[in-house]
Amino acid sequence: MSFTPPVNAIGFLLRHGTDLGAISETGRFEEPSDDLVGAILTGASEFARDVWAPTNWEGDQNPAKLEGDDVIASPGFKEAYQAFVEGGWQTVSLPQDIGGMGLPSVVSVAVNEMLYASNMALGLCPMLTSSAVQAIKAHASPELQETYLPKMLAGEWTGAMCLTEPQAGSDLGPVRTKAMDNGDGTYAITGQKIYITWGDHDCADNVIHLVLARLPDSPEGSRGISLFLCPKMHVNDDGSLGERNDFKPIGLEHKLGIHGSPTCVMEFNGATGYLVGEVNRGLACMFTMMNEARLFVGVQGVAIGERAYQAALQYANDRVQGVPPGQEPGAPIVEHPDVRRMLIDMKAKLMGARMLGFATAEAADLHRHKREGLLTPICKSYGSDLGVSVASTAVQVHGGMGFVEETGAAQHFRDSRIAPIYEGTNGIQAIDLVGRKLKRDGGEEMRALIGELRDAVEGVRNAGDLDVCARAMEQGLETLSTATDIVLNATEVDALAVASTYLDLAAHVIGGSLFAKAVARGKQSGDAHAANMAALARYHALRVMPAADGMLEAIRAGADPVFAFPRAQLADV
Amino acid sequence: MSFTPPVNAIGFLLRHGTDLGAISETGRFEEPSDDLVGAILTGASEFARDVWAPTNWEGDQNPAKLEGDDVIASPGFKEAYQAFVEGGWQTVSLPQDIGGMGLPSVVSVAVNEMLYASNMALGLCPMLTSSAVQAIKAHASPELQETYLPKMLAGEWTGAMCLTEPQAGSDLGPVRTKAMDNGDGTYAITGQKIYITWGDHDCADNVIHLVLARLPDSPEGSRGISLFLCPKMHVNDDGSLGERNDFKPIGLEHKLGIHGSPTCVMEFNGATGYLVGEVNRGLACMFTMMNEARLFVGVQGVAIGERAYQAALQYANDRVQGVPPGQEPGAPIVEHPDVRRMLIDMKAKLMGARMLGFATAEAADLHRHKREGLLTPICKSYGSDLGVSVASTAVQVHGGMGFVEETGAAQHFRDSRIAPIYEGTNGIQAIDLVGRKLKRDGGEEMRALIGELRDAVEGVRNAGDLDVCARAMEQGLETLSTATDIVLNATEVDALAVASTYLDLAAHVIGGSLFAKAVARGKQSGDAHAANMAALARYHALRVMPAADGMLEAIRAGADPVFAFPRAQLADV
Repeated sequence: MSFTPPVNAIGFLLRHGTDLGAISETGRFEEPSDDLVGAILTGASEFARDVWAPTNWEGDQNPAKLEGDDVIASPGFKEAYQAFVEGGWQTVSLPQDIGGMGLPSVVSVAVNEMLYASNMALGLCPMLTSSAVQAIKAHASPELQETYLPKMLAGEWTGAMCLTEPQAGSDLGPVRTKAMDNGDGTYAITGQKIYITWGDHDCADNVIHLVLARLPDSPEGSRGISLFLCPKMHVNDDGSLGERNDFKPIGLEHKLGIHGSPTCVMEFNGATGYLVGEVNRGLACMFTMMNEARLFVGVQGVAIGERAYQAALQYANDRVQGVPPGQEPGAPIVEHPDVRRMLIDMKAKLMGARMLGFATAEAADLHRHKREGLLTPICKSYGSDLGVSVASTAVQVHGGMGFVEETGAAQHFRDSRIAPIYEGTNGIQAIDLVGRKLKRDGGEEMRALIGELRDAVEGVRNAGDLDVCARAMEQGLETLSTATDIVLNATEVDALAVASTYLDLAAHVIGGSLFAKAVARGKQSGDAHAANMAALARYHALRVMPAADGMLEAIRAGADPVFAFPRAQLADV
Repeated sequence: MSFTPPVNAIGFLLRHGTDLGAISETGRFEEPSDDLVGAILTGASEFARDVWAPTNWEGDQNPAKLEGDDVIASPGFKEAYQAFVEGGWQTVSLPQDIGGMGLPSVVSVAVNEMLYASNMALGLCPMLTSSAVQAIKAHASPELQETYLPKMLAGEWTGAMCLTEPQAGSDLGPVRTKAMDNGDGTYAITGQKIYITWGDHDCADNVIHLVLARLPDSPEGSRGISLFLCPKMHVNDDGSLGERNDFKPIGLEHKLGIHGSPTCVMEFNGATGYLVGEVNRGLACMFTMMNEARLFVGVQGVAIGERAYQAALQYANDRVQGVPPGQEPGAPIVEHPDVRRMLIDMKAKLMGARMLGFATAEAADLHRHKREGLLTPICKSYGSDLGVSVASTAVQVHGGMGFVEETGAAQHFRDSRIAPIYEGTNGIQAIDLVGRKLKRDGGEEMRALIGELRDAVEGVRNAGDLDVCARAMEQGLETLSTATDIVLNATEVDALAVASTYLDLAAHVIGGSLFAKAVARGKQSGDAHAANMAALARYHALRVMPAADGMLEAIRAGADPVFAFPRAQLADV
């Protein structure tokens, strides 16, 4: 169950699929020179392969445990996390003036894909820390920032997000956890939170929780929720750790996958909390870090897909069964056309999804907020759905061995299934895309993106042996344009009923077009990997992008086929 | 985690989607009158709901155990299996002259879907018995038949198939298990077999194994394999049970799903075996029952999908989150357009897959062997793949609760994943369809089927409010016809590289067309459920069948995009 990240492919898409020059010109980042990027990717790849990947299976087989009031992480996780902190990996995309490497988000996407692939469950811990850092930086008082951020930035303390309650999941309006003003600048937080990822553990000295709670006289619903910072361990004035705060994990979920990630039920018994941002503006504060978190869940999907792909490839290269056409006896199953098809299909689709992640991060780096907002739900949903389908295909390549846990293929399949659910289900993403991102500017940003990609078609056509990609782009972009008009002109219910299909269509076309564009640029620059990347781009154009056409039919149909069947009869007919 | 089979939907498709009249006219079955069929379906449904379904979760949480040389089934399974035997459910499709109910295979498909849905792991036990019975009936000597069949037919003894060895899975040619002639009409079997479903257990008094093994002077490869019957317990001349035979389970696999089904490693230490069929013709004997087994794995996919669907529906009817458009606060999430879309999508697709199962069984009942052979791989692959995707969507409907094991949604997702693998992986099915079923008659049977479905278009169009179905049939059948020509004229490698895609295309079109045809007939006969079934058929026509067009593009592309990327670089680029 070894794993080596595909550094060449990731580096290729980063160099030719994003505009590192423009990102550099913003002056906000350490200049991402080819040498520096190369060194970072190589270093991250080696760390992922040598330090984190070997802990992945152990985490699955030996989930985190609750002992008394403390969660004990899976064997080897504490050491693997400490090595991550010592290697400075938490700081990749943090500004230099606060001790970070100051690299753009596109580089962080590349690094995090490797980390998530090597150990998805452990990778959630720094991902949550990063989200908490974002929210604290944007909204907390200077004093809170001074007390908590340095340790969190270094990864010495980790972050956790306490949003969900049993009755408040996708809709946080009904949050009931209470906050009482202590009159001394602090608040007493009381209530129960569920699904708290890495809510407690022994990998770091402190866990900084951001908790949504309601003040007594606040309005009902989502406009009456405030955000509070609750440290697991109180922090003394000199920065040393004091007593434990009045909250604790009281249960761990027994989950389908990511067993190494402790998913806590947290009980707050008048815990001391510090207000972050304004009273009753808690949800808005949380949304600050939502884009980044959603981007990284899309990247997780790609990551778990890549890990599953590599496992399937290793198996297909070793396993001998039957004689593939045109081969000698003893040839491994990778030579069977249908096995090869599965592998190339996984590989090519992952490239398209990877490009969606890079494009979203690039938009963030360039402060193109509308573009970032448009691409984020597409990246999150498509990447996470693809992670599940690729992990499923990887099980299939293993045959019977895939269904037996000991090969590890099943773990990837189980782990992958969370990504379409958390950080906003993929249904929520589709609603966000259609109901908010598309409608609020009348489709302007989507049309701008379609226009940019249309402008790129000629370059793809002229790059040599990418004709099929240019044709697929033209046809796909036409389909996306038509679908966009339909959705924009639809009633609310019609638009919502086809939102997921529209998102999927957009992902196929945009991901495929960005991929082809990146390959064309790589060819023009004489990149040594361009020929092989071009073979994948052609596969994507011929066998992946055409699915968009069938989706257009579904979009045209609107809500009628979805609601024509009476609800009362759904259990039978 | 209650489960009630959708008797109305299953009954509708059975009555209007199969030709029970023609089946009756063969004279080989008890006349399947509406009353009888209705009584059987109701009885099976109640048994599935009340007796088997409550044991499903227990089997997942408490897998079968190996204690010494004996496998102890999951808690409650022995009682559930005994109730199955006492209810006579093993005998549904067995001829009356040997104590069966003498009902056609189409009825057995309906009954088995309910049983598999209620407990897939337990359902495998009678499925294996049925397969073993088929092989023994077709190939064993009268003495063997007399000794073993009556008890097996009743379900008092169960069957097991010992085919796979570590180096011999999809390709059984390399089987190494040895058979030595004892000179007294018996053979001594020695070797190790893996993945033996229900290879040992305590639910019945005896387990009758059919074992592939090689005689010392047999040719190498698949033409040197013979089939042997090895009873777990020797049977005395008076029919009573004697000593235990010299083979035993030495391990149980730790699997992703179907934990209640013991998957055994079996060790044969000179076990007494009886030759079944001719020497060196063992593989041919096994293929006798392959069609039926593959049909029933397709049905399993539908079954686990239906179970997952019902769980998702129950959750969606209960869970309140956000206010769906046009609804009051407190409306459950089933009213959210994207949730309703997921539910209707699952439900409609299951109908298409169900029709593929009924059509395959109907062909068997009518002795239309070429039709049965053509449809079997399509039914097996599409049904089993759909089971996985529907179970995945059902997890998604549950949101975070879907990823937590206690809801049971995750179990269905895990259980479902085996069906695309066993009884010939879906890749093998596609090879069988394209390389054997399609090519051996130059596409004649496929063209005949396309012709029959084209002839049905007019009836669908005239049935009222099924216009969209008629159009989808016309377009889909044209697409299938074109794809068939392409595959028939392709080189071997081209055909094999697109075989899975061709199968998927055929399943979409044939399943959708058969479904529309059944609904049209139901409408014409005034069936009370026809209006709701028509709503599902329209959904299928508008949102499922159009996917076939995108697949045609992939089929046109042939093997080139699959093999253009160099094998040596598959790990990266």
